[in-house]
Amino acid sequence: MLEVAMLSTFLDHFGVSVSALSGVLAAREKGLDLFGVLVLAVVTALGGGSVRDMLAGDGAVAWLLAPGIFYTVCTVALVAFFICRWWEPPQTLFQVADALALCFFAVAGTRKGMGLGFAPPVCIALGVITGVAGGILRDTLLGRVPLVFQKHTYFYATAAFFGGLIYTLLRGPLGDHLAIWISISSAILLRLGAIRYRISLPSFTLKSNNDESLG
Amino acid sequence: MLEVAMLSTFLDHFGVSVSALSGVLAAREKGLDLFGVLVLAVVTALGGGSVRDMLAGDGAVAWLLAPGIFYTVCTVALVAFFICRWWEPPQTLFQVADALALCFFAVAGTRKGMGLGFAPPVCIALGVITGVAGGILRDTLLGRVPLVFQKHTYFYATAAFFGGLIYTLLRGPLGDHLAIWISISSAILLRLGAIRYRISLPSFTLKSNNDESLG
Amino acid sequence: MLEVAMLSTFLDHFGVSVSALSGVLAAREKGLDLFGVLVLAVVTALGGGSVRDMLAGDGAVAWLLAPGIFYTVCTVALVAFFICRWWEPPQTLFQVADALALCFFAVAGTRKGMGLGFAPPVCIALGVITGVAGGILRDTLLGRVPLVFQKHTYFYATAAFFGGLIYTLLRGPLGDHLAIWISISSAILLRLGAIRYRISLPSFTLKSNNDESLG
Repeated sequence: MLEVAMLSTFLDHFGVSVSALSGVLAAREKGLDLFGVLVLAVVTALGGGSVRDMLAGDGAVAWLLAPGIFYTVCTVALVAFFICRWWEPPQTLFQVADALALCFFAVAGTRKGMGLGFAPPVCIALGVITGVAGGILRDTLLGRVPLVFQKHTYFYATAAFFGGLIYTLLRGPLGDHLAIWISISSAILLRLGAIRYRISLPSFTLKSNNDESLG
Repeated sequence: MLEVAMLSTFLDHFGVSVSALSGVLAAREKGLDLFGVLVLAVVTALGGGSVRDMLAGDGAVAWLLAPGIFYTVCTVALVAFFICRWWEPPQTLFQVADALALCFFAVAGTRKGMGLGFAPPVCIALGVITGVAGGILRDTLLGRVPLVFQKHTYFYATAAFFGGLIYTLLRGPLGDHLAIWISISSAILLRLGAIRYRISLPSFTLKSNNDESLG
Repeated sequence: MLEVAMLSTFLDHFGVSVSALSGVLAAREKGLDLFGVLVLAVVTALGGGSVRDMLAGDGAVAWLLAPGIFYTVCTVALVAFFICRWWEPPQTLFQVADALALCFFAVAGTRKGMGLGFAPPVCIALGVITGVAGGILRDTLLGRVPLVFQKHTYFYATAAFFGGLIYTLLRGPLGDHLAIWISISSAILLRLGAIRYRISLPSFTLKSNNDESLG
């Protein structure tokens, strides 16, 4: 089990790094200063888990108690702030890394909810919140409608939901360990498949008199 | 007292359904996908109570512990997502239902604050937060200045404030039970009267060089 | 020590008053009504401390338990709503007052974090959050990119960070009392010097095809 804990810690740091990078790239589009970049990185990477922990009311949020991931986020943001002036992460690689982070966090959030004794559907909701709330906060701070609500963001939240659902279904029959890996893997496959084949959820059709049509 | 508890539970589900519907209608204006619609419905319906519970620091927020209203919100959002492509709730009926939900939540939030032992003005503030914060979050996620801050939203927050104020004043002399019904009823009357006669709070005059004047 | 407690209480009320005024002035630009003005004042003045307390998970947020500062904020907002139609606070005086409030709150937030036993870098982050999150929420509610993220906001968050850093460094060798005053004073000097000499953090250069360039 030591290896599992180490892998989980590695995925934690990997996941927040990818999210922090997405915060830095969003901040670049708005011409923010170094502090804005740091805040966007922290909010994107740690916002989802923070909202989950505040809703769950279980004492301080995770990164205050174990600040290692906070240090990782700040370091990534600082380095990326200077590097991303010239360099942009290759899009495909970034999408794969982001899908891994998303699905890992969704299952981790679901597990945390089950550990606190909430009903399974609520745990899945907490998993989705862990996966997507950081990005929603990032977009809201930048004054844009969250990407995750939009049709062309193929199965982003859906993958998070699917990961949590699979985990809650398989945990009983297969045990915690196996349920984690199957749920994360299948959620990643769903997300990457949806990007590849441009599968999206149904959406409301935008009316033509909407201000978005000017953009 | 069984009937009171049943009525309160009914009003809870009724109130979050109306709020969820207002979230779906707002999501429709921006052309969001199904997940965006679900999030908007959840945020609008459960956001006010969640902010109140997080500020009050009294453990997990209500809908995590008693997820019945969360299931109601998701069901309403799913059904409305498909129905609201062709159908829109009649405006007058919707405004009456929304006024009922607003005033019920405002008084319920004030009561929860008093149960936790806060000072009466703080309890009224918690009631107002319960009633209006969901709509503020909905509008913020959609990138628009919250409706409740605007002059043409006749006495929305004012009715919530009034309901909480009447409740705190009457609870001592008349008892909890009677204070609840008088405060909710009078707050609803205030809201509907303000809509009917277009009564609004004083506001700052928008300067002509403001970007809003372009809209 | 009685004098210190009294001075701290005075600075608390002074600080929230200045922040509330900045919320009222922002609300004026958007033509909000009286309730919008009250919410903007409360969010700007009490938002930073509320976010800090919710993240720290230490029971109810401060202004619910000791509502004196809530009453101060509401009073300032009401008075300013009527006065600020004709009168605007002189900019230099306002900037000095705001710098004092910012640096006091940053050090107070850092101290609260240390009292709860978090790691020093996390405490500095809590101090920065206490100082700047209210203004970020204010700007987000008004649909604009937070001022504090922008290059021309000279060393705002940086001064908050600096105050918290100096406090955590000096607290051990010099004691709590002296560390407070040195850290607040030096942070104020940094902020005012940065305004005077237009020193700002490095920032991303805004690309010309950005929507901001249309504004």
